[in-house]
Amino acid sequence: MLLHFTKMHGLGNDFMVVDMVTQSVRLPPDKIRRLADRRFGVGFDQLLIVEPPTDPDMDFRYRIFNADGSEVEQCGNGARCFAKFVRDKRLIGRDTIQVQTAGGNIELIIHANGEVSVNMGVPRLQPEDIPFRAQEQRATYDLRIDGEEFEISAVSMGNPHAVIQVDDVNRTPVARLGSVMEKHGRFPKRCNVGFMQVLDQAEINLRVFERGVGETLACGTGACAAVVAGRLQGLLGDEVRVNLPGGTLNIHWSGEGHSVIMTGTATRVFEGQTRL
Amino acid sequence: MLLHFTKMHGLGNDFMVVDMVTQSVRLPPDKIRRLADRRFGVGFDQLLIVEPPTDPDMDFRYRIFNADGSEVEQCGNGARCFAKFVRDKRLIGRDTIQVQTAGGNIELIIHANGEVSVNMGVPRLQPEDIPFRAQEQRATYDLRIDGEEFEISAVSMGNPHAVIQVDDVNRTPVARLGSVMEKHGRFPKRCNVGFMQVLDQAEINLRVFERGVGETLACGTGACAAVVAGRLQGLLGDEVRVNLPGGTLNIHWSGEGHSVIMTGTATRVFEGQTRL
Repeated sequence: MLLHFTKMHGLGNDFMVVDMVTQSVRLPPDKIRRLADRRFGVGFDQLLIVEPPTDPDMDFRYRIFNADGSEVEQCGNGARCFAKFVRDKRLIGRDTIQVQTAGGNIELIIHANGEVSVNMGVPRLQPEDIPFRAQEQRATYDLRIDGEEFEISAVSMGNPHAVIQVDDVNRTPVARLGSVMEKHGRFPKRCNVGFMQVLDQAEINLRVFERGVGETLACGTGACAAVVAGRLQGLLGDEVRVNLPGGTLNIHWSGEGHSVIMTGTATRVFEGQTRL
Repeated sequence: MLLHFTKMHGLGNDFMVVDMVTQSVRLPPDKIRRLADRRFGVGFDQLLIVEPPTDPDMDFRYRIFNADGSEVEQCGNGARCFAKFVRDKRLIGRDTIQVQTAGGNIELIIHANGEVSVNMGVPRLQPEDIPFRAQEQRATYDLRIDGEEFEISAVSMGNPHAVIQVDDVNRTPVARLGSVMEKHGRFPKRCNVGFMQVLDQAEINLRVFERGVGETLACGTGACAAVVAGRLQGLLGDEVRVNLPGGTLNIHWSGEGHSVIMTGTATRVFEGQTRL
């Protein structure tokens, strides 16, 4: 049977998006793995599935599968592509979309310029919630790595992040420091590691080493965690431009207890049809 | 403008194939580079272009571009996909196709089972033609690498190959030996390095380190070079199954002065449309 799909990316994080509202296809894990292969298949970081909601108050159900076929809860870059997809395919006419995900309900807003805002939730800062081993919540903590002292922030955006301020992201050994820090004993579930260069109150450069993956082009939760860390240290305002290797995200956060809003582009690369 | 294309692979060597007989699109190198990107674009090893022939005795002109936008002369895995593409798209009805390439005219034969045979030309064995530094043509030469002695064969299939017989391809340090040998001083234009395990007169296992690239899933000229080397040493017959990491090729060679015929599969993965 013929499967119609759209290939998209959000700052280089790339997706195969499949409309399961108007199509009906079985995609078990072995088929997802085959489709994910970049030479033998379509190739993608994640497969995004648009389904009818099971909750009548929601517009869609949004499911995310990794290239290994496992289902995951959240993907900020994927959510932007999801919103652009359902609008481009005229599955919805509104600019504000209520979406049911495995990680909870989220709201997506499509702006006139085509960018999409995603509510990334309220950051958790209590050490036991991150989880991070510490006596009490603080804006920064001292951490020893390979005999060197680092000052880091610890933030959970649903996943644990360490954020380190650096003078120049282009001269930071991200692979070496990231691979050591992601396994640091004070992060019992490991962590993503962000290296943040503050340009001014409203702009940072950021490189992120993702837990179990390595450096990526654009980590959405990493951008949120960095802005939260920077604002808590008094270095950043409410609205921050985050320059990542794959492109730029705008992050809005008004302080503790508030949700982080991430805004950025979603790009359609091609339409495809494949036989399953 | 909307560009229609087909994504295909030959044993994992993957291609974007574009019909420029019925479409007319300008694809300068910077556009090819963008399309080649596996996250921001379509993603491929090579772009294959089907054009009308400039020589009236030929059926098509076949052009090949690397992911960096440069035009190259030959690609055996690509030629099989090219043949399947022009038949699937009904650009031709015949089973034997005459094709004009930058490396000369080639004949492609489509078999009833869908496999395609490609005439890969006559191997060149004279040291100066390969090029390889040696006093005279021999079936094997002794080569010193990192203080170790190796017995290699040297063959040109339009590009230079070193072929080494090993006991077990799965236990051969292909990356380490290949990266040293490709730069060996006796190959002034460098070389591709094949590691061949002879199973019997009619079957080998092969891993190839491609010049400037590293190990690949299925090097067509490497499979030909290995069979030529093995037959010249009296280890192989005229018809040999070559098991590569990406799949199997059948190589036919009747000895010096004859062309090598390569037969294998070509797989269509999906149809695509993208806006340029």
